[in-house]
Amino acid sequence: MTRWRLTIEYDGSPFMGWQRQDHGPSVQQALEEALARMTGERPGVHAAGRTDAGVHALAMSAHVDIEKTLTEHRLREGVNALVRPHPISVLSAELVADDWHARFSCIGRRYLYRVLNRRAPPALDRGRVWHVAVPLDVAAMAEGAAFLVGRHDFTTFRSVHCQSDSPVKTLDRLEVARAGDEIRIEAAARSFLHHQVRSMVGCLALVGRGQWKPADIGAALGARDRSALGFNAPPHGLYFVEASYP
Amino acid sequence: MTRWRLTIEYDGSPFMGWQRQDHGPSVQQALEEALARMTGERPGVHAAGRTDAGVHALAMSAHVDIEKTLTEHRLREGVNALVRPHPISVLSAELVADDWHARFSCIGRRYLYRVLNRRAPPALDRGRVWHVAVPLDVAAMAEGAAFLVGRHDFTTFRSVHCQSDSPVKTLDRLEVARAGDEIRIEAAARSFLHHQVRSMVGCLALVGRGQWKPADIGAALGARDRSALGFNAPPHGLYFVEASYP
Repeated sequence: MTRWRLTIEYDGSPFMGWQRQDHGPSVQQALEEALARMTGERPGVHAAGRTDAGVHALAMSAHVDIEKTLTEHRLREGVNALVRPHPISVLSAELVADDWHARFSCIGRRYLYRVLNRRAPPALDRGRVWHVAVPLDVAAMAEGAAFLVGRHDFTTFRSVHCQSDSPVKTLDRLEVARAGDEIRIEAAARSFLHHQVRSMVGCLALVGRGQWKPADIGAALGARDRSALGFNAPPHGLYFVEASYP
Repeated sequence: MTRWRLTIEYDGSPFMGWQRQDHGPSVQQALEEALARMTGERPGVHAAGRTDAGVHALAMSAHVDIEKTLTEHRLREGVNALVRPHPISVLSAELVADDWHARFSCIGRRYLYRVLNRRAPPALDRGRVWHVAVPLDVAAMAEGAAFLVGRHDFTTFRSVHCQSDSPVKTLDRLEVARAGDEIRIEAAARSFLHHQVRSMVGCLALVGRGQWKPADIGAALGARDRSALGFNAPPHGLYFVEASYP
């Protein structure tokens, strides 16, 4: 048996999310089926993060155990050929130690949230950005974001379905920058609560619109109460960027 | 009657191209039908460039004559609401003089060609980039591109269906640059021959692969013969960027 690390890009649009579901297609199922056809085995693929329906990945990390002897080249090319009808691409495959775990060995996760901030809806980036037609104040959003950086109880920004043991997380980075018509929000932490990035972006958008003041973000955080939340930004603007390991 | 200039973004994937065709959907038809529903008129929309099937636009310019009195806001929002099932978005609408012509008044056109140059196929940018799996030598491509800049007889790089009066054109700019896994080729001229950008990119890719030397581009140009051409790069990597006016 060898353990492989896969780095995977995917368009989340047609999927119910990363994780296998009974009621629809998932990235995990598409990859597992391609690997099963290739190897004759029934390998399970485990990811650094289980993205929600519609959320994309630029470079998700995952691991899989395979009995069959393969080269890095054959594994990557073989999966890509078989997974092809789905918008999933294995960027790289590499041998890792048997105790390397995509989720538990991971020490850092980065997300990007893309907001298209202009009157006209997206044509080319439909399903890839959150379209906000009213002008957003990026400086105010950045000021609001600063309240969230650091070690906090993020109960306010946590989904009711969150399975994390503790609501206390350390947010290393939350940056808001404009690039033309687009506002890009980058978040980095060891780990995130379920819906945390989308919840934070939803509140930052309220600040950007002037409905909240930047300090209201700090108040919402301090409330440690889900009902203090503005709303979740939609999934299709969110990208899992990268997982890092020791 | 008022003449309007429209600036339009579109994803070329589902279309037979800009121009109305009997055998399939076009950007022109989708816009004209939206405008007809909005105004009760039968307005014709004329573009700065008639892009081929699969070619995208970041900001195509077009004009249309409308009898009904409209504001810029209502025209843009109305067309965007009605054109919505199609990946087309009117970025702006502005009043222009009655003799302003999107095609004949245009004094500059810019195109971008995107090559994804990595082993793994695209997942997120499927249909938006040309995937070339073998490593391309960008410095050699840039050297080859320099042979094409200036005033030349571009017969070699012209489609048999080209309707231009003369094969002599002045290419103002043809730049090749790498940004991560992507190679971006930017072209600017007053006007281009049919398939010129895709033909030039096809030859540059031969140089990037080492099958042609940079100077072979100059020889192909000098041959003034379509059979000296390498091949056309596929349409889905090509973007009409912008049209400029006096």
